[in-house]
Amino acid sequence: MIKVAVVGATGYTGVELLRILVQHPEVTIQMVTSRAEKGKAVSSVFPNLREHLELNFCDPDPKLLAACDLVFFATPHGTAMALVPELLAKGVKVIDLSADFRIKDAKLWAHWYGVNHTCPELLDEAVYGLPEINRELIKSASLIANPGCYPTAVQLGFIPLLKNNLVDPNSLIADVKSGVSGAGRKAAMGTLLCETSENFKAYAINGHRHQPEIVQGLNEQSDAPVNLTFMPHLVPMIRGIQASLYASLLNEDVNLQSLYEDFYQDEVFVDVMEAGNSPETRSVRGSNMCRIAITRSEGGDKVVILVAEDNLVKGAAGQAIQNMNIMYGFDEVLGLNIVSVLP
Amino acid sequence: MIKVAVVGATGYTGVELLRILVQHPEVTIQMVTSRAEKGKAVSSVFPNLREHLELNFCDPDPKLLAACDLVFFATPHGTAMALVPELLAKGVKVIDLSADFRIKDAKLWAHWYGVNHTCPELLDEAVYGLPEINRELIKSASLIANPGCYPTAVQLGFIPLLKNNLVDPNSLIADVKSGVSGAGRKAAMGTLLCETSENFKAYAINGHRHQPEIVQGLNEQSDAPVNLTFMPHLVPMIRGIQASLYASLLNEDVNLQSLYEDFYQDEVFVDVMEAGNSPETRSVRGSNMCRIAITRSEGGDKVVILVAEDNLVKGAAGQAIQNMNIMYGFDEVLGLNIVSVLP
Amino acid sequence: MIKVAVVGATGYTGVELLRILVQHPEVTIQMVTSRAEKGKAVSSVFPNLREHLELNFCDPDPKLLAACDLVFFATPHGTAMALVPELLAKGVKVIDLSADFRIKDAKLWAHWYGVNHTCPELLDEAVYGLPEINRELIKSASLIANPGCYPTAVQLGFIPLLKNNLVDPNSLIADVKSGVSGAGRKAAMGTLLCETSENFKAYAINGHRHQPEIVQGLNEQSDAPVNLTFMPHLVPMIRGIQASLYASLLNEDVNLQSLYEDFYQDEVFVDVMEAGNSPETRSVRGSNMCRIAITRSEGGDKVVILVAEDNLVKGAAGQAIQNMNIMYGFDEVLGLNIVSVLP
Amino acid sequence: MIKVAVVGATGYTGVELLRILVQHPEVTIQMVTSRAEKGKAVSSVFPNLREHLELNFCDPDPKLLAACDLVFFATPHGTAMALVPELLAKGVKVIDLSADFRIKDAKLWAHWYGVNHTCPELLDEAVYGLPEINRELIKSASLIANPGCYPTAVQLGFIPLLKNNLVDPNSLIADVKSGVSGAGRKAAMGTLLCETSENFKAYAINGHRHQPEIVQGLNEQSDAPVNLTFMPHLVPMIRGIQASLYASLLNEDVNLQSLYEDFYQDEVFVDVMEAGNSPETRSVRGSNMCRIAITRSEGGDKVVILVAEDNLVKGAAGQAIQNMNIMYGFDEVLGLNIVSVLP
Repeated sequence: MIKVAVVGATGYTGVELLRILVQHPEVTIQMVTSRAEKGKAVSSVFPNLREHLELNFCDPDPKLLAACDLVFFATPHGTAMALVPELLAKGVKVIDLSADFRIKDAKLWAHWYGVNHTCPELLDEAVYGLPEINRELIKSASLIANPGCYPTAVQLGFIPLLKNNLVDPNSLIADVKSGVSGAGRKAAMGTLLCETSENFKAYAINGHRHQPEIVQGLNEQSDAPVNLTFMPHLVPMIRGIQASLYASLLNEDVNLQSLYEDFYQDEVFVDVMEAGNSPETRSVRGSNMCRIAITRSEGGDKVVILVAEDNLVKGAAGQAIQNMNIMYGFDEVLGLNIVSVLP
Repeated sequence: MIKVAVVGATGYTGVELLRILVQHPEVTIQMVTSRAEKGKAVSSVFPNLREHLELNFCDPDPKLLAACDLVFFATPHGTAMALVPELLAKGVKVIDLSADFRIKDAKLWAHWYGVNHTCPELLDEAVYGLPEINRELIKSASLIANPGCYPTAVQLGFIPLLKNNLVDPNSLIADVKSGVSGAGRKAAMGTLLCETSENFKAYAINGHRHQPEIVQGLNEQSDAPVNLTFMPHLVPMIRGIQASLYASLLNEDVNLQSLYEDFYQDEVFVDVMEAGNSPETRSVRGSNMCRIAITRSEGGDKVVILVAEDNLVKGAAGQAIQNMNIMYGFDEVLGLNIVSVLP
Repeated sequence: MIKVAVVGATGYTGVELLRILVQHPEVTIQMVTSRAEKGKAVSSVFPNLREHLELNFCDPDPKLLAACDLVFFATPHGTAMALVPELLAKGVKVIDLSADFRIKDAKLWAHWYGVNHTCPELLDEAVYGLPEINRELIKSASLIANPGCYPTAVQLGFIPLLKNNLVDPNSLIADVKSGVSGAGRKAAMGTLLCETSENFKAYAINGHRHQPEIVQGLNEQSDAPVNLTFMPHLVPMIRGIQASLYASLLNEDVNLQSLYEDFYQDEVFVDVMEAGNSPETRSVRGSNMCRIAITRSEGGDKVVILVAEDNLVKGAAGQAIQNMNIMYGFDEVLGLNIVSVLP
Repeated sequence: MIKVAVVGATGYTGVELLRILVQHPEVTIQMVTSRAEKGKAVSSVFPNLREHLELNFCDPDPKLLAACDLVFFATPHGTAMALVPELLAKGVKVIDLSADFRIKDAKLWAHWYGVNHTCPELLDEAVYGLPEINRELIKSASLIANPGCYPTAVQLGFIPLLKNNLVDPNSLIADVKSGVSGAGRKAAMGTLLCETSENFKAYAINGHRHQPEIVQGLNEQSDAPVNLTFMPHLVPMIRGIQASLYASLLNEDVNLQSLYEDFYQDEVFVDVMEAGNSPETRSVRGSNMCRIAITRSEGGDKVVILVAEDNLVKGAAGQAIQNMNIMYGFDEVLGLNIVSVLP
């Protein structure tokens, strides 16, 4: 039984952490922090937690946090890096769901996030928490940089191809689509129902913060540096990411279906679907599964990888708890054996 | 550990039964039947069950069904009554989620469902499976008539008032609203996304089959027969029922909040919310909870009871499993301790 | 050809006014004001107006406004009353789509809107712009208080009953449902897609500002003062209001269908549907039509009136332009002969 | 004033034709046919047409059709080709919104549509009704093959690049997304609200009928034959197509923004947006506009063309009426000067 805290739990990533953690048999939720909602019952903000969680929001007091075994940060960027050094120094483990420790190059980070990094010395120590790639490092990590939602889908989709030198690394295109919850839980005009419902568009066409994170991850698995065209789109739904990934095959005679099945055969949260299927986001809603299908365009050299995940689960809170399970030697599926609600 | 079968599992009630049953620690799913999908993997029809259920659909062979302890019927009306007598005779217990055994008066049933009842002799034996009212009878029942979705919400809302003779039984109005899944999973024009999305309307304005079921249930709890105005509406969403119930108070000095809290104090699946709240359907999505709030109109004699439930869970599959738990002496929340996914 | 201005045109009521006005053959849009978006092309904020309107947002300069024939206020409450006296003094006509001049009793207004009225002397002069009731007064009005969205639906539904003394005025219940656009276009958490989609609930259960406006309007048409139970609900869709109105009939022998058809026979924007129909909101999306159907509950004394309108058109901008057409002697349907887009 | 008929008007393309035609000043709707709904008022099936169209559905009697100037076919494939030869022989003009005359190669057509073509001799005579490319031919055509929804978006997006030899014709990728109305108005399980809402997926991954139509159109504008990877996706909304088109630039020094602006400068229904914009589907909902934006991926050779249209208007009925306007020498925007309803 470990004691955990969730810092910044008023967002969608936060409530999703709580949903899973309240049913995790090895976890006691010790603290749930929010400066804005301090003193309020967590279940008054998130009525799905009525009957399941009796805590009130409190301040993120470092002393109290230090009494936990593990602290999750579900905060906007810039918050975790202010508290993490002190927590690590006191022996507390940290899983940061924000972007603060995802990019190894502090200058690149500052360029995309608009502020300087305050503890660049921890960037090397931080382990990028994509279990399918970094499981061994995660086991002994003290600080996990939990991957972004798009980066999880795009990396899990492309890596088997890159690692086997099967595609031209300059040919990568990721046409990705996300539900609106990816934009977070905050007062904003752009994500009102009236602005997003019955509408579809590409967004962030001049650059998205997940691009450098993805490129960093793909480059680590590729002999030659990749060039990626990354185009995010907003889908009129709450949850789910679907990625259609395109690349030019160098060798068209490979059995890609077998290759993917082999690559992920031991992975409990990656489902390589039978040929001819297309993964749909609702099949993973609320679950930590990432589904992948492989297809080819007729008569051309293009391979198309289709990926679906829940942006708030495998793309955020679920992956964080998967990382926690690995760090503490729990069964990797503990608390994550969730069946999606369908329809 | 009991062996169960689900007959007619290709509908939304069926998949919802399976979602909950695959995680129920005291249940083995023995058979999942569908004539139309016979031979197909259940998970190929319902991709949320991939990794969770390895069965194929099969025919509802009575001999095989008779080898189970309990059979759930998730069929259209008319199917259960053809199979139930044989199953009961062989000592199999039955929970029927269809309407076949809900109405005690066989003529009234025939009037609303358009066919004659083929085993009216079982109507008295069948126990109406609303645990909050009939728990003792359910414990020893062999045949459960699982309540309809609207009837669950309307009865749980009105009964505390009627049982205490607090309202004029002629003044009852139920303005109820349901997500589209209430119409079932079948090829139909009226429930296409393009016909129901971005739209709201009352429907069945000339009479709805749930009306006689509700009236029967309310009359059992009322000294005088009730007159109910029942108006269903279709909401552009998948799941959820919200009922706004109106009645004229005979005595305006009663503390209704306390009355409801007391009435349901031992009920784990009825949540009487603090005054000033309004139950929202998403807070119970996928869960077996029924939330109720009580309010008054200013300056008048009207009480307004607001009720929210998931039509497929407390209004169907979840309640069926609650009934199963009671019948077999399991903890009533076993397999039903579900946290709603929010957002 | 008249010159008009739209003050506060960055909201949903504002863009709807512009959508209709750009195609009105007797109108020139002279000014579109917004302090926040000053200088920006209107079509950059509302891309549906590309190719249709070439203006930029400007400040609501009273001198420039005074050069118009007619000024529409599509502002939050409190703004119109600050500018209207000066405009009226200069001979400019005003249609106020906000609540500033709807309630005749300044104290009651202050109670519900939380500020004191700054020009109560104009409340008597203001004509409540419900054309079906007040057409003659509208013709010669200088200041129109354009009705709220719920009040339009509820009054058009109840008035034929009240005016003919057919129902108990103490028995009125209005169970009303609105799309999310009723909450306006502003950064807010409560109306995010993720908070409202796939959800349904009653709201404002402790009182809604439209209640006193409705009661005032109903009382004017009723011999005895009414008591109204008013319960608003939020529907997961952009546009549309549906009202289910309940009342106890004093005389059950009346042919209500004929009564409504006669009452509204000359009204081009009220459609009394044939018996057995239920008006659906999508059938009036984007149009100024209000559809009404009459039904009865079986075996009781209750009449049920079903009403559908587009909250932003007949419930706001369309009705404002209908008022304008009446004020200026234009054909009442000019610019409003819109066919709803379906699906 | 011309007399027109709409054959097969019970689908979404049909009702959309009627919505626009009832307000077209040069058109009298003479007949609206449907075998299934024969005798019913059109407005009873499509309530948005109440007050706007007084016709009943009738049989598609060839003699009566022959009395019209122009017949629109809004039928499933296979119907138009059975009636068109007789109508043309009698001097009636035809605009076929189905796929019957879109593909010039009868064998290729039979391969994709599963039946043999019954009048292949008309395939050469049929003019592909994409006005921006074929306006001169349309002027004198008797038989128009109205383009498919995806083909309109993809061709208008790619053609300026291909016509100017700016991209590798083997590198074309079209990642396209459509609202559910693209699947038509028919009883079907796959397009129920409960199956499509809150979900996103690629579909038709083994080949889509629009692919050969697009390739045929692109090849006509390209010096070398193209290879196209075409991946359609289903968006949980009613209307709209968004296409993200990718290609490898042969020459990276071209000013693509100017090129597109020049290419479409005389086109009233193509809107080349300023650099930095992303076209959103709601901005063209119900309108005949096709919006295009051009962007580049950072550091690579890829150009990305973003296109948005309403699949039922510029992708079907609106384009058909644009073709009609051209054929009859009407102003091309007559009846099509529609402002989208937003939100």
